[in-house]
Amino acid sequence: MHTILSGKTREVTIGIDRPFVMIGEKINPTGRKKLAAALTAGDMDYVRTLAENQLAWGAEVLDINVGVPGLDEIAVVRQVVEAVGRVADVPLCIDSANPEVLAAGLAAAAGKPLVNSVSGEEARLASVLPLVKERGAAVIGLTMDDQGIPSSPEERLAVAEKILERAAKIGIPVEDVIIDPLVLTVGSDSRAALVTLQTIALLRKTLGVNINLGASNVSYGLPERPAVNQTFLALGIQSGATCAITDPAKLGQTVRGADLLLGRDEHAMRYIKYFRAAEALRAEGSEG
Amino acid sequence: MHTILSGKTREVTIGIDRPFVMIGEKINPTGRKKLAAALTAGDMDYVRTLAENQLAWGAEVLDINVGVPGLDEIAVVRQVVEAVGRVADVPLCIDSANPEVLAAGLAAAAGKPLVNSVSGEEARLASVLPLVKERGAAVIGLTMDDQGIPSSPEERLAVAEKILERAAKIGIPVEDVIIDPLVLTVGSDSRAALVTLQTIALLRKTLGVNINLGASNVSYGLPERPAVNQTFLALGIQSGATCAITDPAKLGQTVRGADLLLGRDEHAMRYIKYFRAAEALRAEGSEG
Repeated sequence: MHTILSGKTREVTIGIDRPFVMIGEKINPTGRKKLAAALTAGDMDYVRTLAENQLAWGAEVLDINVGVPGLDEIAVVRQVVEAVGRVADVPLCIDSANPEVLAAGLAAAAGKPLVNSVSGEEARLASVLPLVKERGAAVIGLTMDDQGIPSSPEERLAVAEKILERAAKIGIPVEDVIIDPLVLTVGSDSRAALVTLQTIALLRKTLGVNINLGASNVSYGLPERPAVNQTFLALGIQSGATCAITDPAKLGQTVRGADLLLGRDEHAMRYIKYFRAAEALRAEGSEG
Repeated sequence: MHTILSGKTREVTIGIDRPFVMIGEKINPTGRKKLAAALTAGDMDYVRTLAENQLAWGAEVLDINVGVPGLDEIAVVRQVVEAVGRVADVPLCIDSANPEVLAAGLAAAAGKPLVNSVSGEEARLASVLPLVKERGAAVIGLTMDDQGIPSSPEERLAVAEKILERAAKIGIPVEDVIIDPLVLTVGSDSRAALVTLQTIALLRKTLGVNINLGASNVSYGLPERPAVNQTFLALGIQSGATCAITDPAKLGQTVRGADLLLGRDEHAMRYIKYFRAAEALRAEGSEG
């Protein structure tokens, strides 16, 4: 199953027979004071720099989140989408808890964007799916509902099925829904990552849909978090995930390594290209 | 299925329901000039240091290989096994292409050692299995035979079945044979790692035996080899490998991270213990 996204000129295909797709996570002010200040001040230069750096590190889609308390997010999401569109021809992923912000971002975005996100919660299904349908976009569906995040893979699968049914009912095709199986913190529940990995395998086997790994707190509270995040991403890719909202400067090497080891990178072309780009970027002092 | 090894006092259980076991690879002079010189000079202090460091980094079994051209390996393997035995109570893995060296090492080792290795080659089956049986040891069986290393998972499984049959015929129980599915260089064949991972999954499903990842050339010729090795190890563990001959200072973090993410490390105890030990060892300047 292929999910096809597009930007101004660039098309991106997500699928299990394709290289894993990185959705750059950095245009999101949560925990990024400098970006929050830039968004508040209307400084689009910094936003464009974040976009360009992530593309240089191998992101193929860019997540756009402008959630700063007190900000006029509807105006700012338009401004950011337009600013990023001037330097990036890739698809955008419009990311907000507020449906009006999603609508404004979707209207401003070129091509066929992605929406982050819907869930199995009734209010969310009712407010987000019509926007996705109307815009002809694709959407990330989180496996949680009004009862919260289920603890078993089978229950998370049931939530995914509910989201797909509701999407189908208003005319969104199955290939335009990417399921995110969610992951909790392994430090507080030692089965948290395993349940997510098992959910991925079950989704792949049962539904064959594309699967996203969201920006993850799996390693929260543990020492040496990057190593845990890298290992989790590798296991998730092997289990059947096909894209992730992630930092390509930190996790690109794991992604390109996993593609290589799973036989999706003939002659190691993408792996070596990533390595060369990273080497040049590090020489310039870029950390993404 | 549990493979139980023992040293002077310490018992180690290898199994899919247990934490992954690291077999320290460093007492092997191939590519290690300083060790080759120490073995030639009979300098056991350096050998003991290698043993102690690997244990500190989390190795639970130590591989012993004394293959230096021109050396009296039979005398030296005895000397090394005795020297290591004085500082290490863990099981040893006697590693040689020469059956007489294996016999000498096995005779000198305490407890129940591991033999590295037999294969499906007729000469090897005939010379190694009787030594394993007589000593009551366990053995690593490589999935290659007189025709070489098969290119498909099904053919590698067939070689594993042949080794297990021959072992059973002379009274070596199935749990005392650990299968090593072998891995070739992914840089020269982009399906090389995938075939090994598929072989691991097939061995686990069909035979349920313990599975070893040998000292690996998977990343040979590629840039940033450690990242590829780490990712491969993570994928191998998820596929069903239960032990590896490896450098615990370089790959211990991936091993402990994978155990944690796969739900085999209650309260992250082993992960945090590894991290603390590594922090202390790095502060002392130890690289293993």
